[in-house]
Amino acid sequence: MSATKAAEPSTSTIDAIKEKANRLSILSMMSTTAAGSGHPTSCMSAAELVAGTFFYAMKFDPKNPNSPDGDRFVLSKGHAAPVLYAAFAVAGVIPESRVMTLREFSSELEGHPTPRIPGVDAATGSLGQGLSVGAGLAIGAKMDESPTRVYVMLGDGEMAEGQVWEAAAFAGHYKLENLTVLADVNALGQSEPTMYQHNMEIYRQKFESEDWAVQIIDGHDVPAVLAALDRAKAAKGHPQAILARTIKGHGVSFLAGKEHWHGKPIPKDRLAAAIKEVGGPIDVPADPGKSYARTTLPEPPNFPAPAAPEYDPAKPVATREAYGFALKRLGAVNPHLVAISGDVKNSTFSEVFQDAYPDHFYQGYIAEQNLVSAGVGLAARGKVPFLDTFACFFARAYDQVRMAAISRSNINLCGSHCGISIGEDGPSQMALEDIAIFRAVHSSAVFYPSDAVSAERLVETMARRPGINYLRTSRPKMPILYGKDERFPVPGFKVLRKSDQDKATVIGAGITLHEALKAADQLKSAGTAVRVIDLYCVKPLDGTALAAEITATGGRLVTVEDHWAEGGIGEAVLAALAQAGAALSKSRLIAVRNMPHSGKPDELIDAFGISAKHIVEAVNSIA
Amino acid sequence: MSATKAAEPSTSTIDAIKEKANRLSILSMMSTTAAGSGHPTSCMSAAELVAGTFFYAMKFDPKNPNSPDGDRFVLSKGHAAPVLYAAFAVAGVIPESRVMTLREFSSELEGHPTPRIPGVDAATGSLGQGLSVGAGLAIGAKMDESPTRVYVMLGDGEMAEGQVWEAAAFAGHYKLENLTVLADVNALGQSEPTMYQHNMEIYRQKFESEDWAVQIIDGHDVPAVLAALDRAKAAKGHPQAILARTIKGHGVSFLAGKEHWHGKPIPKDRLAAAIKEVGGPIDVPADPGKSYARTTLPEPPNFPAPAAPEYDPAKPVATREAYGFALKRLGAVNPHLVAISGDVKNSTFSEVFQDAYPDHFYQGYIAEQNLVSAGVGLAARGKVPFLDTFACFFARAYDQVRMAAISRSNINLCGSHCGISIGEDGPSQMALEDIAIFRAVHSSAVFYPSDAVSAERLVETMARRPGINYLRTSRPKMPILYGKDERFPVPGFKVLRKSDQDKATVIGAGITLHEALKAADQLKSAGTAVRVIDLYCVKPLDGTALAAEITATGGRLVTVEDHWAEGGIGEAVLAALAQAGAALSKSRLIAVRNMPHSGKPDELIDAFGISAKHIVEAVNSIA
Repeated sequence: MSATKAAEPSTSTIDAIKEKANRLSILSMMSTTAAGSGHPTSCMSAAELVAGTFFYAMKFDPKNPNSPDGDRFVLSKGHAAPVLYAAFAVAGVIPESRVMTLREFSSELEGHPTPRIPGVDAATGSLGQGLSVGAGLAIGAKMDESPTRVYVMLGDGEMAEGQVWEAAAFAGHYKLENLTVLADVNALGQSEPTMYQHNMEIYRQKFESEDWAVQIIDGHDVPAVLAALDRAKAAKGHPQAILARTIKGHGVSFLAGKEHWHGKPIPKDRLAAAIKEVGGPIDVPADPGKSYARTTLPEPPNFPAPAAPEYDPAKPVATREAYGFALKRLGAVNPHLVAISGDVKNSTFSEVFQDAYPDHFYQGYIAEQNLVSAGVGLAARGKVPFLDTFACFFARAYDQVRMAAISRSNINLCGSHCGISIGEDGPSQMALEDIAIFRAVHSSAVFYPSDAVSAERLVETMARRPGINYLRTSRPKMPILYGKDERFPVPGFKVLRKSDQDKATVIGAGITLHEALKAADQLKSAGTAVRVIDLYCVKPLDGTALAAEITATGGRLVTVEDHWAEGGIGEAVLAALAQAGAALSKSRLIAVRNMPHSGKPDELIDAFGISAKHIVEAVNSIA
Repeated sequence: MSATKAAEPSTSTIDAIKEKANRLSILSMMSTTAAGSGHPTSCMSAAELVAGTFFYAMKFDPKNPNSPDGDRFVLSKGHAAPVLYAAFAVAGVIPESRVMTLREFSSELEGHPTPRIPGVDAATGSLGQGLSVGAGLAIGAKMDESPTRVYVMLGDGEMAEGQVWEAAAFAGHYKLENLTVLADVNALGQSEPTMYQHNMEIYRQKFESEDWAVQIIDGHDVPAVLAALDRAKAAKGHPQAILARTIKGHGVSFLAGKEHWHGKPIPKDRLAAAIKEVGGPIDVPADPGKSYARTTLPEPPNFPAPAAPEYDPAKPVATREAYGFALKRLGAVNPHLVAISGDVKNSTFSEVFQDAYPDHFYQGYIAEQNLVSAGVGLAARGKVPFLDTFACFFARAYDQVRMAAISRSNINLCGSHCGISIGEDGPSQMALEDIAIFRAVHSSAVFYPSDAVSAERLVETMARRPGINYLRTSRPKMPILYGKDERFPVPGFKVLRKSDQDKATVIGAGITLHEALKAADQLKSAGTAVRVIDLYCVKPLDGTALAAEITATGGRLVTVEDHWAEGGIGEAVLAALAQAGAALSKSRLIAVRNMPHSGKPDELIDAFGISAKHIVEAVNSIA
């Protein structure tokens, strides 16, 4: 690898870092023993690496550790949280006394890092996600021409996660020279030694295959740590991996390199002896003081109204196409937009945005986990990420979405090709669970447009709304339902058919809304009026407003969805009505209940029970 | 790499394989053009590799292509399904005429492979899962001392998926010499060229880092393909990777190596010219004949009753511990059991099984995607896989679970550490969405035991039940509720408190059932009787039986769960009641509704609203 020779750190610098490393180890031991749980040995393997990075390499303002131009540290091996909190304390971000509140109910210092803690950009603790977050932060910094450097600490246990290698490939491909990995290779997993143990050359080969510059060091040798950090800073053109051979529980004879200590604090009666081995004891004030929790977290930046959607009312358009047009219109008024696609931009139509704003588009290839977590990194820098793949493939990144919610992240996901209405490709490409899984995410909104105008307006809403926003788009072209100035509040729904004689309320969205409209026409011809609701916003729901419509139709309800019955529109509506205290007289929940297969869209929606015919039957059975 | 010199194939053999490869290409073109959709160019890059593998290397009985001792072919790049179906046809598994029914509603030949098709072991089409399935098949074959060799065809686009490298590491670690990868490196993804294009050395480095033996060949050079297959068969001690440089759309001048042809059939008016370039035309009978769909798919093998669970009724036990004991007891009577843990066997207690049956346990390391898909491979060989990690981390493998359902697979998953009751580790380790996501899987059952006895009995039920079985276990120790001979039918629930004066029904499971029992005692002291139900089986539900209990308590219902409100127990019960036509007078759905943080379990269940106190309040508000 290429490296510019840096001035060597002085002996006094080295001694100061050694002392700080010991302090981090001791604080990690003290805080976990006080908490009665936690992972001290996983902190001790990392102490010199963390000390060198925080107190020698990184530039940041301890009073404003989340500021855009400061260097960032992502602790991907989140169970080593105590060493991170200790570093924040020693750096002056929080007082050292706070460290002793670790894992308490009232403390901001949770068992694993979350952005409630000053200096933390994203929650970690589900392993193998931090490098993707770091790549997102690094790309954002490059877009901003910021001097920010991003350091990501990986554990060797978590390098078994495929996502780490998705992220390594992504970072190598985009030549993220502002990104440095610190791999704490302590050779012990939770339940037994790791697959490669201390075979450092395997890790070298893996990172080098992704075009990273690699250094292998002894992670407890402070001069080596500092020299590696200097070389990583000086190098150009590649992301940098510092692979450190370390010892779990380093510094304490009864812990160092020993199995069966993972996730176990040091017993109280052995703590003093352990601390003494690492150069202690140290003084920490007894009064922990007040919480340092961040009470306001980043929200998406405001922006002027984009141009209104323009569609020929007579010409059907797929909502997936409208997604692309909407991104392009937003791009003209919101410079923070960034789109990443999982190699499907020509199906999800994010290529329309790429064509207009190529510098704001990244190819994510077929790696959905990295796609989502990189979005979390971008959002942590104030970007407005829009991430797309087929709706079913977000199932691949569901843990990453779950963690994004714990990160209090503001990310937008567009899943195309929902449901059986995709047709011939068959069930592997049909999302039939995406409403269920995205509803079960804290802070989420689930949008499901039935025409191009509502799709565009909802994309604008997503760019403004904090939290996890999910847009479910459809493959088939569908008629335009709304004028270009129609608005779509959240929560909200549209009543598209309504009379005083309505015998039932039919709720649909996407392809099933159009089937519901057909059914309403057929029923009307046969003398039965029904109310038809476009549930463009599946979460949040206004149960009271929905209840008013359903009550007006005799408490008779039919829901119909291109989705499994479990966790979908039907259950969402039932739960909202129950919470609103509404009484149903009769209901029919129409959904996909058998495993679909290939066929033409119309054949499938009929065969699997969600077509107009089945809606008519359901209404007739209760009205 | 080491290789024994094999006899060289004769010129006539080579010519025969070339002819078969052309036939596969032509059938792929014809069938996709007839279907009006599909991926012919992705088939054409693979034609020689598939022909060489099927007609030179593989040994299998075309009349019984799923038999245990035959060689297996897993098409991980599932969108190349037409070339697989063509190979089955040319091999005599199905008639060639069936190929022309591709993607039709009534055909078994779906857009992507599923086990409805003879010879297919697992559904593919969500990319990057096939190598894990193949590793599971290969491990199963080794356990059975079967001569079976497993061939997995990967596309280069899908090699961006981290799961491929989880699987490569797993296969390398377990030295699966009966596993061969055929990598069809055609350099074009769906939307643009792949990250590495034809840089074959990168792929070599990646496989070699995982201890694979690698050969790089021209994938259209039939002698080279056959020689590589021979070398792979002869080699020992390592899995084998044949990395083939190929051309997408090979053989047809207007397709070969051209972008923008992904997933597009050849227009009808250009088909004849294309076929001619590949040596056609060929004759295919016009009458497709009857479907060859497999109507019976594998079910878990039967086994004698295991020993009854033995617990001291006075001594609390965590359900996660009972899982380990149950596996051990089952292992004594069912030789097909195989357990894999995601490096958490000491938390999920599968180590109890490992200690008793070390040859039936595999360390899966921290790689949940591979864990689940390898289980699908094992199940396809008739094994009974039990896969464990923390419940929240199955979110990492949700796409793999989704595909397992499309595979009609029989797999068992145990997720431990559910909900906020885990305490201090914080939200990254708390599963609050697992009921929602596992309910939204076709063929799934969701079991949620509240004591060790029911946990053990449900583990036995899982081993007998076809489909996707999920067991949600809890971290805290909980009192024993049942005698050792109690049975737990599916669907089913237990009524633990019941009187003629019951004013409401309270439904809980796991930690919340014990809170419900406490609440019932407190309410009884205050003069209000309530019915308490242990919902040990969350899916499937018997809505009629539940409705009878709730109706008997005035239609008043309280559900309480250590899970988000969305898609959990409350919604499941509402939907089941709606389907049963039951009327609720008043209901309260108690669930976790705010983002939790660290704290002691009791602090958290109280602060986040799911403790006995909140159940008492809910009952009083409606009774």
